[in-house]
Amino acid sequence: MGKITLKGDIIYTPDKDKLKIHKDSYLIIENGLVVGITKELDSLSEDYEIRDFTGKLIIPGFVDLHLHAPQYPNRGIGMDKELIPWLNTYTFIEENKYSNLDYSRRVFEIFIRDLWKVGTTRSVVFSTVFLNSTKLLMDMFIESGLGAYVGKVNMDKNTTPAMEENTQRSLRETEELLLEYMHKSDLVKPIITPRFVPTCSKELLIGLGHLAHKYNVPVQSHMNENISEVYWVKELYPEIRNYADIYDSLGLFGKTKTVMAHCIYNTDDETELMANNGVYAAHCPYSNLNLSSGMMPARKYLKASVKIGLGSDISGGHELSIPKVMTAAIEISKMVWLMSNRQYNPLTLSETFYLATKGGGSFFGKVGSFEEGYECDALVVDVSNLLTNKSLSLEEKLEKFIYTGDERNIIERYVKGIRIEEPFM
Amino acid sequence: MGKITLKGDIIYTPDKDKLKIHKDSYLIIENGLVVGITKELDSLSEDYEIRDFTGKLIIPGFVDLHLHAPQYPNRGIGMDKELIPWLNTYTFIEENKYSNLDYSRRVFEIFIRDLWKVGTTRSVVFSTVFLNSTKLLMDMFIESGLGAYVGKVNMDKNTTPAMEENTQRSLRETEELLLEYMHKSDLVKPIITPRFVPTCSKELLIGLGHLAHKYNVPVQSHMNENISEVYWVKELYPEIRNYADIYDSLGLFGKTKTVMAHCIYNTDDETELMANNGVYAAHCPYSNLNLSSGMMPARKYLKASVKIGLGSDISGGHELSIPKVMTAAIEISKMVWLMSNRQYNPLTLSETFYLATKGGGSFFGKVGSFEEGYECDALVVDVSNLLTNKSLSLEEKLEKFIYTGDERNIIERYVKGIRIEEPFM
Repeated sequence: MGKITLKGDIIYTPDKDKLKIHKDSYLIIENGLVVGITKELDSLSEDYEIRDFTGKLIIPGFVDLHLHAPQYPNRGIGMDKELIPWLNTYTFIEENKYSNLDYSRRVFEIFIRDLWKVGTTRSVVFSTVFLNSTKLLMDMFIESGLGAYVGKVNMDKNTTPAMEENTQRSLRETEELLLEYMHKSDLVKPIITPRFVPTCSKELLIGLGHLAHKYNVPVQSHMNENISEVYWVKELYPEIRNYADIYDSLGLFGKTKTVMAHCIYNTDDETELMANNGVYAAHCPYSNLNLSSGMMPARKYLKASVKIGLGSDISGGHELSIPKVMTAAIEISKMVWLMSNRQYNPLTLSETFYLATKGGGSFFGKVGSFEEGYECDALVVDVSNLLTNKSLSLEEKLEKFIYTGDERNIIERYVKGIRIEEPFM
Repeated sequence: MGKITLKGDIIYTPDKDKLKIHKDSYLIIENGLVVGITKELDSLSEDYEIRDFTGKLIIPGFVDLHLHAPQYPNRGIGMDKELIPWLNTYTFIEENKYSNLDYSRRVFEIFIRDLWKVGTTRSVVFSTVFLNSTKLLMDMFIESGLGAYVGKVNMDKNTTPAMEENTQRSLRETEELLLEYMHKSDLVKPIITPRFVPTCSKELLIGLGHLAHKYNVPVQSHMNENISEVYWVKELYPEIRNYADIYDSLGLFGKTKTVMAHCIYNTDDETELMANNGVYAAHCPYSNLNLSSGMMPARKYLKASVKIGLGSDISGGHELSIPKVMTAAIEISKMVWLMSNRQYNPLTLSETFYLATKGGGSFFGKVGSFEEGYECDALVVDVSNLLTNKSLSLEEKLEKFIYTGDERNIIERYVKGIRIEEPFM
C-alpha cells in the first residue's frame, strides 16, 4: 500500500471519444487511489516507490460485467446449440455439480486464475443456486485479491428438479449470504441474482426486490437475449407491457444499482427506462453470436444514454479475455451499421476501450480510469513480441494488443493499488 | 521420409457432415502419403517408425486460402477504417516498403514462423508487385518446408504511383516468375495474382489470362467484397453483366484452378458460374467484419455446390489462426441464419473443420484429409491445459481446442509426412 508510482506509457479513457495518452509518465498512487499523472517527479514525490516500466503500456484493468463461474468447464464446447437447448443440454447439468464443494473449488481455482491471467481485475459473476459453493467462490475471490460482485442464483421453476429451489428457502439463503458478506470485504460483495424471469416465480422476484432494497444491494439478471425467450416471457406475463417492466414493477430495475445482460431485443420503451433508471446493459457479443441470439445495437443505446459495459458471458461466450470481447463488440457494431441502420456508426477503439474499463468500472464506483481519486486498477502490458520492424504509435500499440495480444503480454496486474500475484499457486 | 506412424486420437473429415474419429489409433504414412489408419499394427508394419502421441489429438494441418504476406506488420491495426480508406491509409503504404529486400526478409521470417506456429501447413498468398521480394518469399517458404501458392501482385492502375506497374513489364515479370518457380519445388508454387478488377487494366487481365492458360497455372483474386467496390467495378465495366463475368470473359475464372476471396455480394448468376467453373470462394469472415464488408452466406454457396475454404486475409483479418477463423465463420453463419434466411442453417463444427482442412486443401490436390493416398499434413494437438476436471469426448476436445486453444497446444506439425521444425531459428 502506501505511495507508489508506475512509470510507462499511460493510456486510459476519461471520456469515451478519445484515448488519453501520457507518454513516458508517472502514474502516482496513494493508498490505492490515483493522485495524478506527471511527466517529471518533483521533490514531493521523493518518498514514492517507483516501479519502472519504461516502454511498456500502463492501462486500467479490465471489467467483465457478466459471466457465470460454474459454466467455466463448458467454455468452448456445445457451441452448435441455441440458447434454450444449450441451457438444458449443457448448462443446467454442469451447474448441478456445484453442490459438491470439492468440485467447486477445483473449477473456481482455474476460473479465478484465468481471470487474473487475462487482466480482468473486476467482474460481476453468477454463481449457482447452491449457497455454500457461492460462499466458497466469494472467499476465493477475497483470497485472490481481485474485485467482484458475486450472486447466488435464484431459480424456483423451469429448471432441472435438482436445482429447483423452494421459494422461501431461496430467499432465506440469499439473505444469509447478504448478511455474512455485505461487510466482509472491500472488494468482493454480494449481488441479488434472479437468473431470469422464466425461472423465477413472481413471489421470488418480489422477495428479491425487497432484499435488494432492504440492504441496498445491487441486482443482476438477463433480459431480451433471444427471440424465443422474449416470447416466452410475454406468455408468462401477458398483462405486463414488456420484459423490463416486469423487473421494474417488482423492484429489480434500478431501485438499487442494476445490470442486465444482453438487451438485444429492447423496445424503445425499455431502452428509455434503462436510461432513466440508470440500469446497465452488459454487452456480451461473443455469447450473442455463439447462441445465435442476435446483434445488440450498442450505438443506439449509447445515443440513448444507456450505461454499457462488456461481458464475456462465460460459457455462452467462449472468450474470457475482455480485449477479445472488445474486438467482437466492434465487429458486431460494424454489422449493425452496415445491415440495419447507417445512423449507428461503428464503435471505435476508444469507445470500446472505455466500455471495457470505465464504462463497466463505474458499476463498482470510481473504477476503470486513472483520473484523480479513482481506485487504481492497472495492467502493465508489454507488446514487444507482437511487433515487426515497423514502428507504431502508442495508440496503434494498444490496438495491436487488443486485436492480437493475449495474457502473455500482461506482465503485472494491480487492484486498488496492490499488485496481485497469480492466485492459488 | 520413409515409413512412419503417428499414434493418437485421430480426427478428420472425409466428408463435411461428420467428424471421423479413430480413438487411440495409428496413422500410417509412407513416402509422405497416408496409407491407412489402424487400431493395431500388424507384422507388415514392423519396420515403421512409431511416434507415440497417445492421448493427444492428430488432425490435418490447416489450410489458409487467402492472405497477404506484406501486410503482416499491419495485423490488428487500422481497424477503425473501411476497405477503400484502409487500402489507401495502411495497405498500399506498407506494401510499398517491399522493394527493400532486407525489410522484406525481416517481415517474412516472422510471417512464415507465425504460420508454422498456428499450424497452417498450406496457404495461398498474395505477395507484392515487387518481383524480387516475391522470389524471396517463395524461397523462404521452400526453406521452411511449409506448402504455399505465392503470387506476385499485378496492378497497373488505381494504386499509389510507386506501385503502379507498366503493363508489359508486369506481364514479363510474372512470366519470369512462372518460368523460374513452376518446377523449382514440389510444395511451393506460383499463382497468377491480379489484385482485383479496379487496379488492373483490361490489357493486363487479358495478358494474365493468357499466362495462366499457357503454363496451366492457378489464379487468385478478390471479388464482391464490399458494396462500394461492386459499384466501382460496375462503373468500370458497364457493358459486362457482373463482376464474375469480367474475370470469366478474360480467362481468369476457372480455366485453370481459381480462388476468389470474399464473394459476399454474389448474384445468383455469379454463384452458379462459380459452381459450374469449379471456382473456389475463400471465406474470410474476420476481414469481412473488420472492414465492415458484410457477411458471406456460406450455407447458400454450399447448397449451390460452390467449393469453399477459409482465409485469414491478413491484414484485413487480424487472426492468423485458422481455428479462430473457423469460430468466426460459424458465428457469422448463425447471424446469416438468424437475420437473413432461416433456410441457411448455421455451419456446424464438422462442416467448418472440413472447410479449414479438406475444403481448402483440395485446392492443393489430395490435401487436408487422412484418406488413403492423401499427402499427410498433420498436427499433433495437446489440449490438456485447456481442461478442468470435467471429462470431455474427443469431439468436445477438438471443439475446445478450436474455440479456446492457441499455438501453444500444437506440439508437432507435418507437411507431406515430414516433421517441420520452427523455421529461421
